[in-house]
Amino acid sequence: MSQKLLRNALILSMNDKREMFVNGDILITGDRISAVGTVEPELISPDAEVIDCTDSIIIPGLINTHVHLCQQLGRGLGDDVDLLTWLHERTWPYELAMTEEDVEISALACCAELIRSGVTCFAEPGGQHVDAMGRAVTKAGIRGILARSTMDCGEGIPENKQESTDEALNIQLDLIKRWNGAENDRIRCWFGLRTIFNNSDELIVRTKKLADEMNLGIHMHVAEIKEEVDFVRNTRGATTVEHLAKLGALGPNLLAVHTVWLTEREIELFAEHNVKVSHNPGAAMRVLGFAPVPEMLNKGVCVSIATDGAPCNNRMDMLDELYLTALIHKGRTLDSTTVPAETILEMATVNAAKALLWEDQIGSLTSGKKADLAIIKPSLKPGSVPVHDPVSSLVYSMHSSNVTHTMCDGQWLMKDKAIVTFDESALLEKAQQHADSIRERAGIQLKPRFPVVRVR
Amino acid sequence: MSQKLLRNALILSMNDKREMFVNGDILITGDRISAVGTVEPELISPDAEVIDCTDSIIIPGLINTHVHLCQQLGRGLGDDVDLLTWLHERTWPYELAMTEEDVEISALACCAELIRSGVTCFAEPGGQHVDAMGRAVTKAGIRGILARSTMDCGEGIPENKQESTDEALNIQLDLIKRWNGAENDRIRCWFGLRTIFNNSDELIVRTKKLADEMNLGIHMHVAEIKEEVDFVRNTRGATTVEHLAKLGALGPNLLAVHTVWLTEREIELFAEHNVKVSHNPGAAMRVLGFAPVPEMLNKGVCVSIATDGAPCNNRMDMLDELYLTALIHKGRTLDSTTVPAETILEMATVNAAKALLWEDQIGSLTSGKKADLAIIKPSLKPGSVPVHDPVSSLVYSMHSSNVTHTMCDGQWLMKDKAIVTFDESALLEKAQQHADSIRERAGIQLKPRFPVVRVR
Repeated sequence: MSQKLLRNALILSMNDKREMFVNGDILITGDRISAVGTVEPELISPDAEVIDCTDSIIIPGLINTHVHLCQQLGRGLGDDVDLLTWLHERTWPYELAMTEEDVEISALACCAELIRSGVTCFAEPGGQHVDAMGRAVTKAGIRGILARSTMDCGEGIPENKQESTDEALNIQLDLIKRWNGAENDRIRCWFGLRTIFNNSDELIVRTKKLADEMNLGIHMHVAEIKEEVDFVRNTRGATTVEHLAKLGALGPNLLAVHTVWLTEREIELFAEHNVKVSHNPGAAMRVLGFAPVPEMLNKGVCVSIATDGAPCNNRMDMLDELYLTALIHKGRTLDSTTVPAETILEMATVNAAKALLWEDQIGSLTSGKKADLAIIKPSLKPGSVPVHDPVSSLVYSMHSSNVTHTMCDGQWLMKDKAIVTFDESALLEKAQQHADSIRERAGIQLKPRFPVVRVR
Repeated sequence: MSQKLLRNALILSMNDKREMFVNGDILITGDRISAVGTVEPELISPDAEVIDCTDSIIIPGLINTHVHLCQQLGRGLGDDVDLLTWLHERTWPYELAMTEEDVEISALACCAELIRSGVTCFAEPGGQHVDAMGRAVTKAGIRGILARSTMDCGEGIPENKQESTDEALNIQLDLIKRWNGAENDRIRCWFGLRTIFNNSDELIVRTKKLADEMNLGIHMHVAEIKEEVDFVRNTRGATTVEHLAKLGALGPNLLAVHTVWLTEREIELFAEHNVKVSHNPGAAMRVLGFAPVPEMLNKGVCVSIATDGAPCNNRMDMLDELYLTALIHKGRTLDSTTVPAETILEMATVNAAKALLWEDQIGSLTSGKKADLAIIKPSLKPGSVPVHDPVSSLVYSMHSSNVTHTMCDGQWLMKDKAIVTFDESALLEKAQQHADSIRERAGIQLKPRFPVVRVR
């Protein structure tokens, strides 16, 4: 099996002891990490590929626990408008106008941005054309958990997209059969629940039962917008998390995304049932409101970090999300010591691996785990020089432009800043063309922000 | 005089009509813009340097209205600690240990980061060794307004730094004589007032009088931390802005920085006296609290944007600050339409030029003004593709890594992503060495975030 030896790096292993190796090495054999820190010379085969990592930091590949791959081509379509315009006049028409080919290009463009920001694994909440997303992820070489946007009730669903509870479940079972465990178990497939606005109690209960039986997770938007609290109180007589508790739907395999509008009791319910949380700071700041992250962490809830989709953030860049997570809770609580850098790095690695039920294989640089990692070089740019404290530098100062290499499942996805699994520049050209054409087909008109003067 | 012709760009002119030229050209002659949009062929000399800007966006150089050049080497020293630790155990000891050479390197490293993020002009609130900063700015080729950190009373000033009001003013007059108007008027020098904690009423009144007589501005931290409100009430019987109003210190030449803890009445006072505001979203989110920016803009206050210094942000990157400004006020007010992208671009260009009393020369791409601009290429990276709306893309999606060229005073500072006015990589190496050595001299010990294992 082919070997790669990464030499002389600062290694933030995020292992159980959180050891930080100075001038350490990592040996990779096939898709696995064989040794971290000190590598015994007899383990190294003579034809191992050797990369000198002097002055670089190696981290476990970052894990983005909530990203809409199929929304990548809609980036910038919903800026500075109210939520209803965003949904009804921009995002939904755009998504409905997408063909399967559009979705594949969108997903691959999103993977490119993720790979460049040191991400090696993601969870998709579900869009249309899951097979197209699967093909893109296969090509990109990144690790990910797919799902399907699942709705069986509620308003706003176009007639041809309405499904019964049985249909919604059967389509998912079919997708799971096709994608779960694919590509050397690099791709998995979960159940999706869009939101409580569009999911019947029956669907929620049956989804939870199936997920438990099949050892799979459930990806769901929870307590996302203020209106949700009133809606669930009026229709179900409780808040979202309380209602999910009554249905028996809370558990370690529920990934609850956003979780902005929570009561103290609901945070306790998360902790009691070991529910996993995906915090999306960019989307929260932009429109949803501020999630009680320090409060959840203090109660022992496993909180991870994510970008959300391009039309509501718009940076699908995990290093920016780490920075936002570091800033926003300090400003909100006026406590400059809350959610420190080391916690943020844990959220984006070990916590995220737990949230995706994948902690036995990923989330830390540990011998025996999958070789998913990123190499980061501070000295590349004035924006990350000097480094006094590598962990805080990583969280507060680094940009995607500092990431030089990304590896997933023992394979290079990016090497010396060039993506190696597909032709990135051809893809970006196509992405712009398809994005324009979907916008035109969907009849979306953006008013120019300033008066336009055409010179040629 | 040498000419440069930038061809076929999307030009966000930010001129009085805010015209956005599609496939437009810009002609630069010497240090001035000669034409924008359509360039008459007879204006172009045969030896003009021609740059093809197809698929690029040209904007007026961004203006950072509050950045501590001398704190650049302290980036990351004060992360995740409380304010007193930040000040007394990290930032002050570090700054006091800096030699004049350290400050010059710090300032040049900061200029490098600014130039890479499309900044062509800044205002410095004043540190030690202003002459060293002036030399760095001379070399970097960027435009800027220097000042000196000025204190004549209050606690926490080391004995050898204590100055009388007369001394404080005389040193500044000397600096102004040396630096104001230097380098073809690329460098200016203002009066500084550190904060009301450390400035006597006499100093404030005499500074205002001198500034008015000499047509100069005053750079001051105002209503920065919550404790300031109580301190000024107790010592002066009013809040900071009310007290400055009583002293007659409010006026169009006051640049009030941070302005987080304001009453409604104080916002009105800013509007009545045409005081200029520098909003620092990163520093605010990290520790100070959220400034009432939509409220100030609604009252007609001229608000600009800035990074603050490296130990309290830590990104000296104006494109990130535009993004933060776009996010934070939406999340705080739960109004996703507030402070839209076009307003943010105005804040960082035309408003900022007014804030620096320089709107006759900079802040827009207008024939006759100084040639200060940045060229930005969205298609360089997956993180900025697609573009549906160039103005919102610029604010929400672009990074410094999208900036390909920066020009100030008609001279290239960065060309094709290479800084041309100094040797950047040699500088960055020196910056790390000096940063380490200052930290050691100052006796600052950072506790490692994770257990350290030394392999070699």
